Amino acid sequence: MKKRYDNESQGYDAWFGFKQADRRLIGQYSSVFENICIDPGIQGFETAANELKRALEAIFGRTPGLVPQPASSKGTVLLRKAAMPDNEDAQLDDEGFLIRRCKTENGAALTIFEAKTGTGALYGVYSLIRHILCGSFSDDFHIAENPAIKIRMLNQWDNMDGSIERGYAGKSIFYENDMIKKDAGRIEDYARLMASVGLNGIVLNNVNVHEVETRLITKDYLPEVARLADIFRSYGIKVFLSINYSSPVELGGLDTADPLDDRVQAWWDGKAAEIYSYIPDFGGFLVKADSEFRPGPFTYGRNHAEGANMLAKALKPYGGKVIWRCFVYNCRQDWRDRVTDRANSAYDNFIPLDGLFEDNVYLQIKNGPMDFQVREPVSPLFGGLKKSNMILELQITQEYTGQQRHLCYLAQMWKDVLDFDTYCRGKDSTVAKLLSDPCDGVHTGISAVSNIGDDMNWTGHDLAQANLYCFGRLAWDPSLMPETIAREWVLQTFGCDAAVADTITGMLMDSYHIYESYTSPLGIGWMVNPGHHYGPSVDGYEYSAWGTYHRADHEGIGVDRTVAAGTGFAGKYLPPNSTIYEDPKTCPEELLLFFHRIPYKYMLKSGVTLIQHIYDSHFEGAKRAAGLVERWKSLEGRIDPHCFSRVLARLEEQASHACEWRDVINSYFFRKSGIPDEKGRTIY
Amino acid sequence: MKKRYDNESQGYDAWFGFKQADRRLIGQYSSVFENICIDPGIQGFETAANELKRALEAIFGRTPGLVPQPASSKGTVLLRKAAMPDNEDAQLDDEGFLIRRCKTENGAALTIFEAKTGTGALYGVYSLIRHILCGSFSDDFHIAENPAIKIRMLNQWDNMDGSIERGYAGKSIFYENDMIKKDAGRIEDYARLMASVGLNGIVLNNVNVHEVETRLITKDYLPEVARLADIFRSYGIKVFLSINYSSPVELGGLDTADPLDDRVQAWWDGKAAEIYSYIPDFGGFLVKADSEFRPGPFTYGRNHAEGANMLAKALKPYGGKVIWRCFVYNCRQDWRDRVTDRANSAYDNFIPLDGLFEDNVYLQIKNGPMDFQVREPVSPLFGGLKKSNMILELQITQEYTGQQRHLCYLAQMWKDVLDFDTYCRGKDSTVAKLLSDPCDGVHTGISAVSNIGDDMNWTGHDLAQANLYCFGRLAWDPSLMPETIAREWVLQTFGCDAAVADTITGMLMDSYHIYESYTSPLGIGWMVNPGHHYGPSVDGYEYSAWGTYHRADHEGIGVDRTVAAGTGFAGKYLPPNSTIYEDPKTCPEELLLFFHRIPYKYMLKSGVTLIQHIYDSHFEGAKRAAGLVERWKSLEGRIDPHCFSRVLARLEEQASHACEWRDVINSYFFRKSGIPDEKGRTIY
Repeated sequence: MKKRYDNESQGYDAWFGFKQADRRLIGQYSSVFENICIDPGIQGFETAANELKRALEAIFGRTPGLVPQPASSKGTVLLRKAAMPDNEDAQLDDEGFLIRRCKTENGAALTIFEAKTGTGALYGVYSLIRHILCGSFSDDFHIAENPAIKIRMLNQWDNMDGSIERGYAGKSIFYENDMIKKDAGRIEDYARLMASVGLNGIVLNNVNVHEVETRLITKDYLPEVARLADIFRSYGIKVFLSINYSSPVELGGLDTADPLDDRVQAWWDGKAAEIYSYIPDFGGFLVKADSEFRPGPFTYGRNHAEGANMLAKALKPYGGKVIWRCFVYNCRQDWRDRVTDRANSAYDNFIPLDGLFEDNVYLQIKNGPMDFQVREPVSPLFGGLKKSNMILELQITQEYTGQQRHLCYLAQMWKDVLDFDTYCRGKDSTVAKLLSDPCDGVHTGISAVSNIGDDMNWTGHDLAQANLYCFGRLAWDPSLMPETIAREWVLQTFGCDAAVADTITGMLMDSYHIYESYTSPLGIGWMVNPGHHYGPSVDGYEYSAWGTYHRADHEGIGVDRTVAAGTGFAGKYLPPNSTIYEDPKTCPEELLLFFHRIPYKYMLKSGVTLIQHIYDSHFEGAKRAAGLVERWKSLEGRIDPHCFSRVLARLEEQASHACEWRDVINSYFFRKSGIPDEKGRTIY
Repeated sequence: MKKRYDNESQGYDAWFGFKQADRRLIGQYSSVFENICIDPGIQGFETAANELKRALEAIFGRTPGLVPQPASSKGTVLLRKAAMPDNEDAQLDDEGFLIRRCKTENGAALTIFEAKTGTGALYGVYSLIRHILCGSFSDDFHIAENPAIKIRMLNQWDNMDGSIERGYAGKSIFYENDMIKKDAGRIEDYARLMASVGLNGIVLNNVNVHEVETRLITKDYLPEVARLADIFRSYGIKVFLSINYSSPVELGGLDTADPLDDRVQAWWDGKAAEIYSYIPDFGGFLVKADSEFRPGPFTYGRNHAEGANMLAKALKPYGGKVIWRCFVYNCRQDWRDRVTDRANSAYDNFIPLDGLFEDNVYLQIKNGPMDFQVREPVSPLFGGLKKSNMILELQITQEYTGQQRHLCYLAQMWKDVLDFDTYCRGKDSTVAKLLSDPCDGVHTGISAVSNIGDDMNWTGHDLAQANLYCFGRLAWDPSLMPETIAREWVLQTFGCDAAVADTITGMLMDSYHIYESYTSPLGIGWMVNPGHHYGPSVDGYEYSAWGTYHRADHEGIGVDRTVAAGTGFAGKYLPPNSTIYEDPKTCPEELLLFFHRIPYKYMLKSGVTLIQHIYDSHFEGAKRAAGLVERWKSLEGRIDPHCFSRVLARLEEQASHACEWRDVINSYFFRKSGIPDEKGRTIY
């Protein structure tokens, strides 16, 4: 990063601290990276070359020489366009890269670095930096990588007043006072962070498009959006905008936004032409329609395919995409109604439309059927949809996972989603495979709601940077293991002190299960304070209109979603998942209360009753949260003291808040069931 | 009212509609009110004379003559200063009035109208109007009245950004955009409404004094405050301001607001001099100190007497008062703590200070020990404090009583408070008596948080005007019966159609019990959504830091506040109240769960169990709420159609929301207790 802001002690540099690389490695490889040679035949490699130069400078403490051809006596990195018809090059995608060590004829170190595009080269540079900093660069280094998933994007839920919906790290870096910020320095640094983990798209505004944001697609704002697009373009990132489905009414003065009305189609055709006149490579639209009071085609008696296809036709001439969210449900449900099930909603809305969407429409599907809870089953739209382009939507910002005041490394949750076997092409039809190796002309992607704001350390909690990092890495390569990614991030961020790396990696790896254990039990979800969603409120959503119920009474808890006796949601899955979920004996216990209504005295596989499991996991979880404080304290003196203090304060808050969670949840169930803790611990 | 705004169909005229008086009465008394004669020796009767003239004009449809002395042939109202040493006049207070019919020597009708001051005369005028419109004026009319309670004031919880804390009738009529509104027409009409029910004081800003409002006592705003004071003065109303206890720091640049610091005393002395230079009859300060995060003397290790007396000394030279709120409690309580009891807090804080306050300090005490719940016992500070000036604080704005979306006529609740026998001077030491007939040089008053805003009908719900009206009337005469006041209000507001008067009076009279029956049971309170306080959330405050718990478990519910086994709050009362409250068998059942923890199977005096009572009252309450709709519908065509529709819409919302209350409360207790409704009605 440029030194735009104070320094690394504020956490601004994130995983671009560089200078903390292992001195031993620096000694070993310093000679390998003395020069850079850029093949004169290439264009568009400028950012990559600059980034390489800057990183080598920072890591090795001296400016690499720029040489016209590989030097005979010194270590040189040769950047060149992958164009030779050898086997490896042929396998490179536009975003891929190849790096291999070899010796020149005279024995000097040569690192050949190939890509087909500047973006591929850039990804290669960041990969090389990562390998150097993680100590995995070697004499026989040889890698060739392509991204597994084509579309890898972030969704900013930023509003133009500077607020961020579900943002926990300050205000927007993009907007203030209904304007796009003039100083783009921080935005460029964000683009760099994104590119460094391989992300290639960004939606610049909140899916809930309010009055001012509706006008982002007008000449009032398009010149400024184009300026942002210029910044992101240098880092290989396309910009998208969330749009208001009622724009033809709000902006165009039409009396309808009916997608089958010719005037509406014409209005959007014109709008697309206008947008592309400012931004020739504009990515397209993200659309939240007919969801939580947002306008959409339902208003006009049209379905979502009709609604999306109209926009798609407008964007198609320019190569633009319509990303259409499947987060559609009745948010005015009657809590008394036990037949309607929000979990069924996205499936029931979109499966009948499969195959009806234009080929530049992408259905964006949240990982679970509800809404980013700590634990949900995977949306049955994965495996259910056969002919629609799909984007998996994850949430990096920790809305339900501790709001960046609790440590919760999300890679394990996401990995569970990616590794989920849908069986739609037979065994081993994991979500990761559907996304990275789609069939039948289907196109796919992965996106996530960003967790950054204008806090100096980007993410509020310093360690929450790991979630932004790991999302990009998993999007690039879903086969990576959460621990591998965590360690990569720690080594780049905190340097290669083994105690630091082991401790923080361990804390990250434990954090999701710790958080889960002291919050709502066994997949039931939603036991949070309404509105802001922070902290426990067991009945907070129980009598609400949001379709989010646990149905606890004095005998038991859980929602019967079986086909046999419940809402039928379990039957939305392909076998064997449907049968596994249907039976409480085979249902994975971490999802037991999501699929089944279970008496408190039901015996779990672990040999304790459900109620005792609730007590045990909450006592244990709070204890382990306190343990995180101790683990972190062991690092005092080994990491930057400011960062140490910041994180310590958050971990202490977490430990205290975990006790609040423990006591509220345990008290609620004790008061309701009347069954005491077998171990006689204090419940209020 | 002047025709500042459209017309009576918007509800703006409130109980000043005039022209709806009974035609029969108009015929009968028209001749009595043909002329007005104002004794030339009096000053300050201008407002009274104008109001009388305007009212007679409106009621009888012609301008009364202004005659130099009682006309010999026509009915005349003679306004004169009460100065003659007859028995009756001697009993008139400065605010009292006397009206009596008599015949002149030549047989013409003469109405003698006496008061010592213009304010007394004004109150007399409004009384006369009331009697005419209510049909209680007669040939031998003869009344002499003084207000029972000296200080009768409203507290506006208005903020200068135009919002109103706990306001349910639009924005502030006083402020917008951090300025006092220039157009004072509506403010004058409000002053008239206040004076018409005998109110003589107003606190112009919210007790929570934020940054801008802190500056109301500076030269930035004082000229404007003085302008408001001029308006209210013509109606006999003194203005007060809520102040920020930290003003010496915020405004004065001192490093402390310690009440024992000479610089602080000097700062306030100077501030008082400055305020009185703008407003010579300024009423004084209302202070919320050391309460809910507001600054106060505790910051400096001083008690409330030290805190209040310092301000009192500053105001004393000018006759100003310090009204010091007793709403002091720990709002960061641990819900696990069953020893600390918020109910004890005001008592424990202020009883030890009794006798230590300056004689121009008034302790303002909320009616109950908690906070304006639907049902609470009376604060034991009444009867407990012997030597302190006291003001009873009520809440007209319906924070916990349906937010002016539900009909809830509050006179019965307030009457219960006023009639509560404290026994502090032996039997019949009611709160009303303590306030209207204080001993030992103690001064008293009554105040209430207003329910008006800039909605055209003042109070959102048209029928909520009755609460503003009845507060003034009860403050003037606590012996009035709620039904009497309700009928007065209806007759003046809707005219004298007997069916209308009976129906609306009946609806008002039933409304408090209906509301109570479908909300939280038997005095336990607080089962509302946190923050905004609208709608049911049984556990909404159960695990909070606000000291507001019901402690429901699978066996029972309620807070043990006995001396024997609980928090001891019952013992704060004088006998026999203390012993009555101590025992569940003698405790009034409407307060049973406030004082006792009771098993669901406990048998109430009515012969049903507690749980069955909860079910019964909630089913019954929702049914009766639906009945209000039907009762109102019977008036269609008999009252203004706009008013009819407005109220109907609110009553329908209430009926529906009462079902929500019923179902949530019943479901909560059924799920928790497992005990079914004996009558087999639907519980979810």
